[in-house]
Amino acid sequence: MRIVDIRHITVPIKSDMANAFINFSKMDVSVLAIVTDVIRDGKPVIGYGFNSNGRYAQPGILSHRIIPRLLEANPDSLINEKTGNLDPKLIWQSAMINEKPGGHGDRAVAVGILDMAAWDLASKLVEKPVHKFMAEESKSGIKTPLEKVWVYAAGGYYYKNQALSSLTSEMLGYIDLGYRTVKMKIGAVPLAEDLVRIEAVLNVLPSGCTLAVDANGRFSAQLAVEYAQALNKLPIHWYEEPTDPLDFQSLGKVRSAYEGVLATGENIMSGQDAKNLALYGGMDPEKDVLQMDAALSYGFVEYDQTLKTLGDLGWKSSRFVPHGGHQFNLAIVAACGLGGCESYPGIFEPFGGFADGYKVENGYISLPEVPGIGLESKASLAPILNQLQ
Amino acid sequence: MRIVDIRHITVPIKSDMANAFINFSKMDVSVLAIVTDVIRDGKPVIGYGFNSNGRYAQPGILSHRIIPRLLEANPDSLINEKTGNLDPKLIWQSAMINEKPGGHGDRAVAVGILDMAAWDLASKLVEKPVHKFMAEESKSGIKTPLEKVWVYAAGGYYYKNQALSSLTSEMLGYIDLGYRTVKMKIGAVPLAEDLVRIEAVLNVLPSGCTLAVDANGRFSAQLAVEYAQALNKLPIHWYEEPTDPLDFQSLGKVRSAYEGVLATGENIMSGQDAKNLALYGGMDPEKDVLQMDAALSYGFVEYDQTLKTLGDLGWKSSRFVPHGGHQFNLAIVAACGLGGCESYPGIFEPFGGFADGYKVENGYISLPEVPGIGLESKASLAPILNQLQ
Repeated sequence: MRIVDIRHITVPIKSDMANAFINFSKMDVSVLAIVTDVIRDGKPVIGYGFNSNGRYAQPGILSHRIIPRLLEANPDSLINEKTGNLDPKLIWQSAMINEKPGGHGDRAVAVGILDMAAWDLASKLVEKPVHKFMAEESKSGIKTPLEKVWVYAAGGYYYKNQALSSLTSEMLGYIDLGYRTVKMKIGAVPLAEDLVRIEAVLNVLPSGCTLAVDANGRFSAQLAVEYAQALNKLPIHWYEEPTDPLDFQSLGKVRSAYEGVLATGENIMSGQDAKNLALYGGMDPEKDVLQMDAALSYGFVEYDQTLKTLGDLGWKSSRFVPHGGHQFNLAIVAACGLGGCESYPGIFEPFGGFADGYKVENGYISLPEVPGIGLESKASLAPILNQLQ
Repeated sequence: MRIVDIRHITVPIKSDMANAFINFSKMDVSVLAIVTDVIRDGKPVIGYGFNSNGRYAQPGILSHRIIPRLLEANPDSLINEKTGNLDPKLIWQSAMINEKPGGHGDRAVAVGILDMAAWDLASKLVEKPVHKFMAEESKSGIKTPLEKVWVYAAGGYYYKNQALSSLTSEMLGYIDLGYRTVKMKIGAVPLAEDLVRIEAVLNVLPSGCTLAVDANGRFSAQLAVEYAQALNKLPIHWYEEPTDPLDFQSLGKVRSAYEGVLATGENIMSGQDAKNLALYGGMDPEKDVLQMDAALSYGFVEYDQTLKTLGDLGWKSSRFVPHGGHQFNLAIVAACGLGGCESYPGIFEPFGGFADGYKVENGYISLPEVPGIGLESKASLAPILNQLQ
């Protein structure tokens, strides 16, 4: 068994929305295929991967460093001796040869893309759903993976000339889809104006439904604390990424000022950075939420170790709710029994969203019982995956 | 005045050496040119930049994100209103539009390459040596830039089947070149074997000359402490990067165990990461050495702010000795009155090394009085720069 080719394309996800930090009009995604010499039903077995939204496609690092290393590797070095199959951990190690420590950014995204494809491939080779395969093959996997996962609807972006009514309609639309918690952006307009937006949404949410708010790392410590004081008076599900993701000192100040739940981590791009967040960020492991996203931070091989490291620091699996609402992160949540998964109904399509035919019910969604991640169970992805065959 | 083109090429710096973490056989460098519509002596004024050794060329991020943003920017948005010239700070801001916070890795290298070219260009436009221009234009610049800069010779890499005598000859060669401090790698062989190598070098160094050792972030906390205990018995100039660059907890353990000077920072790739190192790494601002390298970490625009931030935390300018022995970092050291600059005599050429005709004397080197960085004052660079004209 060997890899015969690794291909990738760059796909735009143009959108006219914005959060407090960036607009998405030039955002794009790398989609990658690991093609093997294993033939089933007349076709090669292929693993697919892509990056989550929010960071860019990685055509350069994939073509320049990651893919050449794998294609030049001794094919046997990628094979698990016990199973005889291609092994995601060995693929990961080969991809990272001659990379220096530190500097966790775009490289973490590129390796995350490859890692998703490697887990998709390896679970297809054994004809298991990836969440069951990962549960067996990882340190953090649980004996019986979750059958359904809590998801929340992240939206509420800023659009030019947006009426308040379109924001509240958007949020109510998510409730109609079966979500019970919705999330909106804050921080791109002054606090007073954000409070009007937040209260408008709170006023229309049905009983039993909750609202989280997300500042996308935009605030200074002082402004983040001012928001915290205002938010203390409102029933907020969580207050997300108030300050720069690596500014642990400022985060600690927000933690002292805020009475509710804090969430952060989507821009923490390695296990070491996650450990530093846990050590120095002042977050409460009994209460707060960590949102590291494997598909942006060296993949599940690294994330599995991160869960272990942070578990040793007192963080229970229920406190992890990954960013990046797609099928791979959903599978990781099920495999490791995590608290839940982000979801972006109708945006970042076709990469965001879960398998066709699976509906959110009372805030939970279940996973397809097909080999691999089940990307093929999503009709809108098919034309893109087909380009790589 | 406007930018008419930004070009870049990828140049290999093949070498058969290795440090404790990587080998350099596939290492490469991006060289970039900002071409303007300003014509002098019949030629356009061009600024050149490249990345330091140790991290890879960035053809992908430059072509995919950074350069398109600058070429699509309103040309007036890059011009300093007061001087009417292209402004490195405005070029930097334009390059970073729509980039999320956190994730400081390859992007920091790509922006560092552009930033070097922007300072080279801006100082050529006013016909000043870049160190004098930066001294005037930055927060951390000193009134009268240094006329000469302390440099040390970094070498002592691991080569296959290397005899001890070739290591000691290499080190003595640096002393003959005028250096008074030399540095060698440790950590790729067991401690006992490294001690033999270190003592061999210490035994041949003339009086008044010193030896630093560099582990390139390879050690666990435990092994780093074992090395510290062994090194405590030897007259070591500094003990560099004992643990993972972002593992501040382990660094603190080494700091407690080691009696001499610690140095680290070359893999700290943003101002925020540098601040975290200062806050959580346990380093001694009166004694230890910080080696952040602007050419790998968003350039001088960011580094200038980092010097200010760390200054506020008690770090004097004399404690900064940047990694990356090339003319731009030498100019930054002179402009800001820093402690010194790394140098790699004979390796990483033609990018490493200083202007032709300038010799190290008693551990110090002076800077060329030509407009810009003076890359054109280095004959070995000319064929590469010519490819970009």
